Parts: sequence; C-alpha cells; structure tokens
Amino acid sequence: MRQLLTDIRRTPLLWLLVFVPVVIYGERAWPEAGTLLFGLSVLAIIPLAALLSRTTESVAERTGDAVGGLLNATLGNLTELVIAITALQAGQYALVKASMAGAIVTNTLFMLGGAFLLGGLKFHLQEFNRAGARFQSSLLFIATIALLVPSMVATSDGRAGAPELQTLSTMLAVLLIGGYALGMLFSLVTHKEVFVSAVHEASEEEPLPMGTAIATLLGVTVLVALVSEVFVGSVEEAGEALGLSPAFVGFIVVALVGAAAEMTTAFSAARKDRLDLSVSIALGSASQIALFVAPVLVLLSHVVGPTPMTLDFWPGAVVMMLVAAITAALLTSGGRSAWFLGVAVLMVYAIFGLTLYILPPVQ
Amino acid sequence: MRQLLTDIRRTPLLWLLVFVPVVIYGERAWPEAGTLLFGLSVLAIIPLAALLSRTTESVAERTGDAVGGLLNATLGNLTELVIAITALQAGQYALVKASMAGAIVTNTLFMLGGAFLLGGLKFHLQEFNRAGARFQSSLLFIATIALLVPSMVATSDGRAGAPELQTLSTMLAVLLIGGYALGMLFSLVTHKEVFVSAVHEASEEEPLPMGTAIATLLGVTVLVALVSEVFVGSVEEAGEALGLSPAFVGFIVVALVGAAAEMTTAFSAARKDRLDLSVSIALGSASQIALFVAPVLVLLSHVVGPTPMTLDFWPGAVVMMLVAAITAALLTSGGRSAWFLGVAVLMVYAIFGLTLYILPPVQ
Amino acid sequence: MRQLLTDIRRTPLLWLLVFVPVVIYGERAWPEAGTLLFGLSVLAIIPLAALLSRTTESVAERTGDAVGGLLNATLGNLTELVIAITALQAGQYALVKASMAGAIVTNTLFMLGGAFLLGGLKFHLQEFNRAGARFQSSLLFIATIALLVPSMVATSDGRAGAPELQTLSTMLAVLLIGGYALGMLFSLVTHKEVFVSAVHEASEEEPLPMGTAIATLLGVTVLVALVSEVFVGSVEEAGEALGLSPAFVGFIVVALVGAAAEMTTAFSAARKDRLDLSVSIALGSASQIALFVAPVLVLLSHVVGPTPMTLDFWPGAVVMMLVAAITAALLTSGGRSAWFLGVAVLMVYAIFGLTLYILPPVQ
Repeated sequence: MRQLLTDIRRTPLLWLLVFVPVVIYGERAWPEAGTLLFGLSVLAIIPLAALLSRTTESVAERTGDAVGGLLNATLGNLTELVIAITALQAGQYALVKASMAGAIVTNTLFMLGGAFLLGGLKFHLQEFNRAGARFQSSLLFIATIALLVPSMVATSDGRAGAPELQTLSTMLAVLLIGGYALGMLFSLVTHKEVFVSAVHEASEEEPLPMGTAIATLLGVTVLVALVSEVFVGSVEEAGEALGLSPAFVGFIVVALVGAAAEMTTAFSAARKDRLDLSVSIALGSASQIALFVAPVLVLLSHVVGPTPMTLDFWPGAVVMMLVAAITAALLTSGGRSAWFLGVAVLMVYAIFGLTLYILPPVQ
Repeated sequence: MRQLLTDIRRTPLLWLLVFVPVVIYGERAWPEAGTLLFGLSVLAIIPLAALLSRTTESVAERTGDAVGGLLNATLGNLTELVIAITALQAGQYALVKASMAGAIVTNTLFMLGGAFLLGGLKFHLQEFNRAGARFQSSLLFIATIALLVPSMVATSDGRAGAPELQTLSTMLAVLLIGGYALGMLFSLVTHKEVFVSAVHEASEEEPLPMGTAIATLLGVTVLVALVSEVFVGSVEEAGEALGLSPAFVGFIVVALVGAAAEMTTAFSAARKDRLDLSVSIALGSASQIALFVAPVLVLLSHVVGPTPMTLDFWPGAVVMMLVAAITAALLTSGGRSAWFLGVAVLMVYAIFGLTLYILPPVQ
Repeated sequence: MRQLLTDIRRTPLLWLLVFVPVVIYGERAWPEAGTLLFGLSVLAIIPLAALLSRTTESVAERTGDAVGGLLNATLGNLTELVIAITALQAGQYALVKASMAGAIVTNTLFMLGGAFLLGGLKFHLQEFNRAGARFQSSLLFIATIALLVPSMVATSDGRAGAPELQTLSTMLAVLLIGGYALGMLFSLVTHKEVFVSAVHEASEEEPLPMGTAIATLLGVTVLVALVSEVFVGSVEEAGEALGLSPAFVGFIVVALVGAAAEMTTAFSAARKDRLDLSVSIALGSASQIALFVAPVLVLLSHVVGPTPMTLDFWPGAVVMMLVAAITAALLTSGGRSAWFLGVAVLMVYAIFGLTLYILPPVQ
C-alpha cells in the first residue's frame, strides 16, 4: 500500500486522481452541468487508466510468464472495455462503434507516429526489429480486415440494416475471440521467445505486492466504471455544447483518453531508442481491440444492451481503419525511422480528426 | 497404361474416380435428384482434377522446359476452365463470376493459409525465398487490380449496366491475355532461372509415357466436361435445397473442388518444409485465373454464351479479391512463417465464407 | 545565351520549340480550329517543359545545396502548376482535378513502369536502393491518403456537395503545405545525406550561367502560360471533336505532356542502370503533386477561380490514385526489377486509360 502511494507521488500523471472524487461528487451536486462533468470525467479517467495498466503489469509479473501474459493481454485495454460497456448499457451504439474504430486508428497512427516523432527528435535514425514488427503488423492487418469485411460487404451491397447482419456479427464475434485465444496460445506458449523480450523490458519499476495489486485492480476497475458512467451520461450534452458529434468524441476523445497510459509507455520507450517496444505496444494494443474488445462487446450487447449490436461501421470508419492498418504495415516493413515519418503519420491522423470534426458521419 | 493404373492404386484421392461413372449414370437414372447429383459430381470432379494435373505434368516433363512450361501454365487450371465454360453455355454468369473470384481468393487465402498452418504444425519456424515470393505476389496484385478496376470504376460511378462496359470488358480481356503471353515469355524464356527450381521440384513421381499421357489428358478433359454438365445443371436445385446461393457455391464450393489437386501438392510441399513451392503454386495459380482464365471466358462468352459476359463483379467480390491480394503481398514479404499466420489467413477465408453464406450478394 | 542555343541544338526534343510561335500566331489566325490548336499546344508545351526543368536545374546547381534543392522541389512541377492555374481561371475544375489525379498516377505508373521496362530491356536484372525507395514510397502513400481521405469519406457517406467540404478542403490544403514544408526541412537540412546522391547525379550537363538561367526561367514560364491558355481554351472543343472526355484529357494527355521532361530523365537514367534516380524522380514528382501542387491550387482557387475548389475527386480517380500508391510501395519494396515488372505496371496504366476512355466519369 505504501508503495502504491510512493508510485502515485512519483508519477505526475497520477496526481490527476484527485479528479475522481470530484467527478463522483459532481454528478450529484451539479447534474445539469454536462460539459463540466464531461471535462472532469476525462481528467479522472486518464490517471485511472494509468493505474490500471500499472497494476495489471504488477500482477502479471508476480504470476509468471504464461498467466501474466494472459492477464496483460486480457486486461491491457480494460479501460476501453469498461467505458464501452457503460455506453453499451446506455444504448449509445454510435459511441461504442466510434470508440472501437478510433482506438484502432489512434493506437496505430497517433501512438506510432508520436513514438517515431519523439524518438526522431532525439536520434537521427532509429532502427527496429523488422521481423517482429512485420509479424505484428500482418496480424493487425488481418484483424482489421476480419473486423471490417462485414461492413464493407454490407455497405457496398446496400444492406446495412439487414437482419442477417445480426447473425453474421454474432458468429464473427465468436470466430474472432477463437482467433484471439489461438493468438495467445501462440505468443504465450508455442512461440513466446519471439515476443518475450518486449514484454520483459516493459516493466522497469518495482512490482506492487500481490495483495495490493489485486485489491487496486478491483478498486480501480470499480472507479473507472463509476467515472465512465458520468462520462457516457454527459457526453451527448457536452458534445452538443462543444459542437462535437458522437463520432468525433468516440473516435478521438475516448480513444486518446483510453490509450493515455499505453501512450506514456510507448513514447518514453521511443525516447530511450527502444522503438521495438513502442511498435509492439501500439500494434499489439490495436490488434487486441479488433480481435478481443470489439467481439466481446458484440456478445455482451445480447445481455446488457437494449438490442444486439452489429459489427458494421460507417463507411468513413472502414476507410480509416484500413488506411491505418496498411500504413502500419508499410512503415514498419522498413525497420528504420526518422522524425519526418512521425510527422507524416501524425498528419494522416490530423486529417482523419479534421474530417470527422467538420464532416461527422450521418447517423 | 499400367503405370497409370499403378498411380491410381497408390493415390487414395484417385479412388474417388469410381464416382465418375456413377454420376454419368445417375444423370439419366435420377434426373430429379438434383442435390444427390450435385454431391456426386463434386466427388467425381476432385479425382479428375488430380488426374488432369498429374498428366499435364507428365506431358510437360517429356516435352522439355519451354513447351512443357507453356503446357503447365495453360492447362494448370483446366478444370476451372471446363466447369466455367459449361456454366457459360448454360448462361449462369453469376456462377462463372463467383467461381473466378472464388478461385483467386481460395488459391490465395485457403491454399496459402493451409500450407502455412500444416507446415507450421510440423516445423517451428519456416523460411522461404522472399525474392521469388515477392515477385509473384506483385504479379498477383497487379493481375487482380487489372481484373477489378473496371468493376470498381463501374460500381462506384453507379453504371454497372452501361453498354460501354461490354466493350471495355472485351478490350481488357485482350489486353490481359497479351500480358499473360508476355508473362510466359518472361518465365519460360528470358528469366526462366528465377522460376525453374520450383517447377522442377514439383514432379517427384515417374512421368507417364507420352502416348498414355496425351490420351489420358484428352479422355479426362472429356470426362470433366461431362461431369461439369451434371454439376452445373444440378447446382441451382442443390443450392436451393441446401440453402446456398449461387455466389456461395461458385465462390467456395467450385473453387475448392477445382483447386483440390493443386492443394494436395501445395500442402504436402509445406509438410516437407518446401514453402517456396507451396507459395509458388498458390500465387501462380491465382494469377493464372486473373490473367488467363477470366479473360478467355469473356472472349468465349461471345461465341458460346447467350449474351457477352462483362468483367465486373459484385462489390463484395471486389473487396475480397483485393484483400486476398494485399494479404498475400504482406505475408510473403516477410519470408518467414509460423502456424498462427496460417490460422490468421484461414480465419479471413472463414469470414469471407461466412459472410457469403449469411449475406449472399443480391443478383 | 550561346550555351542555351547549343543545348537546344543538341536536344532533339527542344526542336519542338518551333511550335511555340506557331501556336501563339495560330490562336489569332485560326481561332475556330480548336482541334488543331489543341494539337499544336501539346507539341509546344513539351519542349517548354523540358527547358523549364533544365533551367531550374541550372539555377539550383548554382545556388548551392539547400536553396537549390528548395528551387528544384518548388519549381519541379511548374508546368503542371501553370497549366492548372490557367484551367482554374477558366473555371474548368473537372480538368484541374483530373490533371492532378492523372499526374500522380502517370508519374507513379507510367514513369516507373517505363523505366523498369526500358532498363529491363537492356539489363537482365536491375537492383536499386531499397531503403531510399521505401522511404519515398511510404511518403507517396501517406501523401495520397491525405489527398483522398476527404473524397472517400465524402463520397462514401454520400455528401459530395456538402458546404462543409469547402471548409475541410481549405484547412487540409494548409495542413498539406505545412507537411510539405517540413518535408523539405527534412530532405534539405536535417537528413539531406539520404537524398543528396540522387539529386547530385541528376545533372550531367554543364549548368547555364546564372543570368541566362533566371531570364530563361522567367521567359519560358511566360511562354508556358501563353500556350497553356490556348491549350485550356481549345481542350473542350478538341475533346468533343476527338470524342475525349475532360477527365481523359486531364488524366492522360495533360499528365503525360506535363511530365514529359522528367520522363526523359527518368527513362535515360534507367537505360544507364541508375534505377535509384528513376524511382526517386517518379515518386518524388508524384508526392510533390499531392503535397504541394494540389493544395496550392485549392488555395489559389479562392483568388483566381469563379468559386473555391474542393479537394474531392470522382470515385474512379480515388481508386486509381490509391492503386498507384500501393503498387509503387509493393514494387519498390523488393529492390529488384526486370522487364516484365515494367510491362505489368504499364498494363495497369493502360487499363486505367482504357477505362477512362470508354467509361468517363459522369460530371
């Protein structure tokens, strides 16, 4: 417990935890102030995400390679999952889908681009392991394809509303989760030597004791759920007040907030000339959204949502995810990076954001 | 002749030849039993395709490099061609187009994925010649683009039915066949050293004597034509009975049946750690469909079909062919494979199949 | 001055300069003869473009690396820019957009394919520097994406005419020019060692004296502007007479004419086994159109055009640009070339041309 407090004191990002009680109090005190609550909940989620990522890592380290890897792989995007489940319960499917698509694009373009830029400002040319990056970007490409084929086919044939789309979405979700399970078997059991270095290097700090870690994990998840409720409840009002569409909020704001913790790690690794780690975090996180988080949400929508959710996205999101996956494949196949590559990737991200801001998709 | 019989006795796949007379008899005996005839004709085509591929190889080996290569390259997808011509005569253009698109996707995703998986279950990591694979996957990409640009342009501009599409299709068919001829000049004459190893390794068995081989080739082609007629004639009824659309039958069933022989070779090569050969068979066969079989069918449709056939596909098929070509390019550019890569590719194929099964294209 | 005349005498391409006065005279003498004027203006622009490129190079060489590179990078596509501005003033936005898209596709496919083919007819296998080519093709891919995301999103969501598209186009233009400026900082200042060899090798001839060069630069630009006016004024009439749509003329004719000078250099470099230079000219020129010329035209349209121009293209153009960028990335990632690769790329270009000729986009 003391170590947890030391951690918090040493990490400026975690000072934002002070906003957690403020948000929870604020929800009762000023239920009308949607925009304020929205801003406060964003500020509160960021440190919670960082804490969640930190404790997951601690538990993972204590439980040994296989179980730890499993935990890391499953809980790594827990923040996104909790926010999305809250939105699912509220029936805000546009927000859920936008945040899934946005998480894939943000992790790929913003995290990778930022790492290339920040690393490139410090080092003239950076090399990274092509074989590993190529493997992960192939996986991301296939995962993205898997996710978007239904919407491409449904949209291009003009049958976005067909009832069969529901059946297809549910079956695909099962298939994708099966693929994810095999992927874990691959990376944690049969071919762990290909992945082990990156995971190992990730943890530099002293791990928390097991009890504290598990207690924190549970407690923080509850807090994320509470704050997410405020966030999701206020997002529509805030969006209107700020002139932001649900698509923009989900795609850009939720995705950046949810990935804040991983980004800190990926960027600081790039500054230490360990681009392997940055690439692995960015692409791994994006694949996980496509192969695990999105299908789980489809299955959960049968239980917690007002109606089952389908796996089809609006056409612009399909284009953006596909572009992100191809960009990642092209950029990482070279195995070299310099600052301008980061600028170029961030530019594509900025163009996506600008397009969504000015021309949000018609719901 | 004796050797041919020995061959048949030794190869369990060829025992299915017993279904050939059953089908031909069945067509007269039970003309109403569409679903049964469909199943029997599938079972009969598989060994005929294997035999066709075996005898083509024998003739090729006896006639020396250049002529042999030419024969191999021209007759390699004879089964698909004969089935498609039969469907063309019956005016079943949806089936013809679906089987062309399906052959490209199946050869690329299913054959490559299966080879990666089967090889990967036996060997921890498999390496293959990147240069050769890259050359062939570039060719496949360009061939696929050539095939689908018309439909992309026509569809996206909303003029799928324009009469000019007919003119364009015919001219493109001539252009593609010209490109195919130059490609043979390249691989058989000017740069044969790049390709020769793969072709040479393919044939392990004793070649059949020339006379037997040619007689078998002719005889088997006639049998394939006869069985194809039953197949095409029963496909609609069977499809309805089994709840399968013509698109699904063409894309998945015909493609798998037509490629059965090549698949056997590609998979067994992967089990012998000769992924070069597997990749070369899979991508070469897919390019051949795009550059030779499809254009030949367009030209033949002027002669044997009720109306000329165009080269445009339904939007979902365009997406699937493009995804298959890009996946092949990404996966083979690494030059390394492990079992999970095979699983991932097969997953994409399964998703395509599932989508076609549940949401067949509107005709 | 004498040297300039020597240059002209030695270069057969420049003999076409005789058509410049003919065109300018012809415009007054036979104002009705649209098709003739069109043909003459095409013949006159080609040598002017070559001269422009030659003098830009001379000025660049005299002013030293950084300023020279800046000039080269800014004036390299001056011909395209002047033609497009003339068309802009005439309100011929379909022609402007077609020529932008066409310049990207022509530089990528025709110039690269031609270089591969011409080089391959002389050398059995040609190798080129993969690292440099990969960097430039990544840049081209990102630049193309940047350019086409708006139209993909706008088209696929069915809002091509929305007024917000205008705002988006203007903001994107600013963003792209910013990216272009950073790209020059990168290639001319911080990482010039990666690019310097190619630029240096380009100039083989004796540079013109500074005064002559600047005077020629100014004079030739004025001549290009005069001839462009005839060209743009006659294009519609000639197009109708020859049965060519504005899209075909812009995409194929203007693009080939504008790039004639760079093509000469790229092709002759390929014949000297210096594919690095060919690849660098082709891809660099294409990126420049996407990142600099197109955005500048959008901004200029606020000043010189009847209404502001947007950055959205018709769907077929989007597909073609994307295919060109992906093809370039795939082909150059291998670092090897042979004649058939050139044939294959030229075939894709021919298919694009044929499609545009037979099925021009609906305006």
